[in-house]
Amino acid sequence: MIGVLYGVGVGPGAADLMTLRAARLIGQAAVVAYPTLAGGASFARAIAADLIPAGAVEIAMDVPMSVERQPAQLAYDAGAARIAGHLEAGRDVVCLCEGDPFFYGSFMYLHARLSRRFRVEVVPGVTSIAACAAVAGRPLVARNERLTVLPGPLPAAELRDRIAGAESVAIMKVGRHLGKIRAVIADLGLMDFALYVERASLPEQVVCPLAEAPKAAPYFSMILLTKGADPWL
Amino acid sequence: MIGVLYGVGVGPGAADLMTLRAARLIGQAAVVAYPTLAGGASFARAIAADLIPAGAVEIAMDVPMSVERQPAQLAYDAGAARIAGHLEAGRDVVCLCEGDPFFYGSFMYLHARLSRRFRVEVVPGVTSIAACAAVAGRPLVARNERLTVLPGPLPAAELRDRIAGAESVAIMKVGRHLGKIRAVIADLGLMDFALYVERASLPEQVVCPLAEAPKAAPYFSMILLTKGADPWL
Ligand SMILES: C[S@@+](CC[C@H](N)C(=O)[O-])C[C@H]1O[C@@H](n2cnc3c(N)ncnc32)[C@H](O)[C@@H]1O
Ligand SMILES: C[S@@+](CC[C@H](N)C(=O)[O-])C[C@H]1O[C@@H](n2cnc3c(N)ncnc32)[C@H](O)[C@@H]1O
Repeated sequence: MIGVLYGVGVGPGAADLMTLRAARLIGQAAVVAYPTLAGGASFARAIAADLIPAGAVEIAMDVPMSVERQPAQLAYDAGAARIAGHLEAGRDVVCLCEGDPFFYGSFMYLHARLSRRFRVEVVPGVTSIAACAAVAGRPLVARNERLTVLPGPLPAAELRDRIAGAESVAIMKVGRHLGKIRAVIADLGLMDFALYVERASLPEQVVCPLAEAPKAAPYFSMILLTKGADPWL
Repeated sequence: MIGVLYGVGVGPGAADLMTLRAARLIGQAAVVAYPTLAGGASFARAIAADLIPAGAVEIAMDVPMSVERQPAQLAYDAGAARIAGHLEAGRDVVCLCEGDPFFYGSFMYLHARLSRRFRVEVVPGVTSIAACAAVAGRPLVARNERLTVLPGPLPAAELRDRIAGAESVAIMKVGRHLGKIRAVIADLGLMDFALYVERASLPEQVVCPLAEAPKAAPYFSMILLTKGADPWL
């Protein structure tokens, strides 16, 4: 018997924004895997902490945060090999992913390495976009509107072009790109539509107009550009 | 004491893809509201059916499916008035929304009508996009990639322009627009990247290359255009 690899979305931060399926799988897990950022803690593990069985084997994959790809690739290679060992021994492995696994999630790298050899089941999760919109009280898209999701690390000129042609926009991975993104949005005359959201659904959450955002943004922050609610009346 | 209006995402279809918070709120609800499509059943209610308390008051909002806006607006006006009556009498109201409430969700119309007068809490849910990607085993976006979400009812020429400039694409509300969308994708030479997903996470789910999609698509269907997994190795 070969084990099954579960890629489980644990949602945006609050433990009760996990799905019932995710909670059940984590609560029964014999082996749990998760990425840790540059030797620090794992956000995904923190979200699920109260559900992980005491005796579970834990596989922490330490993924370096670097612009070059190779260090992260080696970390995923090593993690995939450890996970494969458990699967071959017949043990299911539950891989924890913040938000949704297939939406900018680290699970994609394990999926690419293991899905040809093993059965993989993905449990979708609440994305950070849905969570940020919810805590901001800002509907994202309705009717025939379009939604564009952009990563903050894109160059200013590309961000500008993409935002200019868009309707609703969510900008991910803000962090140290905040100043650049803010300048682009101000330049486009869109500051009045822009909201800044940090650590949505957690006690430390911040929600404010982009114009009032803190000078330094953490990695777990997002900018939403949406119309107000009135178009939907 | 004034009641609180909860806009609760119940996820894409499988009951256990609801969040723990949604399940708790529904299980304790005194008043439950939901849209029904043109006199038919409510998909959101069906997803949550086993959790709704036996004695709960139910508010079904019959929303006509028409291109004109006024009939739907009147239905939401009437629903909002009934909900407001319960809130004013001090009863919380749990409004059920398929997927995520702020992502093409009908709750947006109630939010627009009631959020200035009452406290509204939105419980984000798993979107149909995350669910379709999960069941298809197709990662959506990684690294600095962009995601574009397009509604299928857009005119062919606009769909064409938006898809041509995009990376990953999800096309919602396929239904009777399948033929038009398919022609646009074929014309762009992108058929090899296109997946068709119908009723993701339900027993009747269909997942196949767009080229093999059934002739007639139901309303609950989506097309995903993504690269394969290899770019993430
Ligand atoms: C590598 S991506 C992971 C996204 C995740 N898989 C999801 O489905 O939302 C990390 C980015 O998600 C966003 N993010 C994740 N959690 C967040 C939260 N609670 N509040 C605000 N932004 C968040 C931030 O933009 C962050 O830089
Ligand atoms: C009015 S929108 C509601 C979207 C929902 N609020 C969400 O967060 O996914 C309805 C569209 O969502 C998509 N959809 C919803 N559930 C789906 C499912 N289980 N499988 C495939 N598509 C689905 C279809 O494209 C459908 O036309």
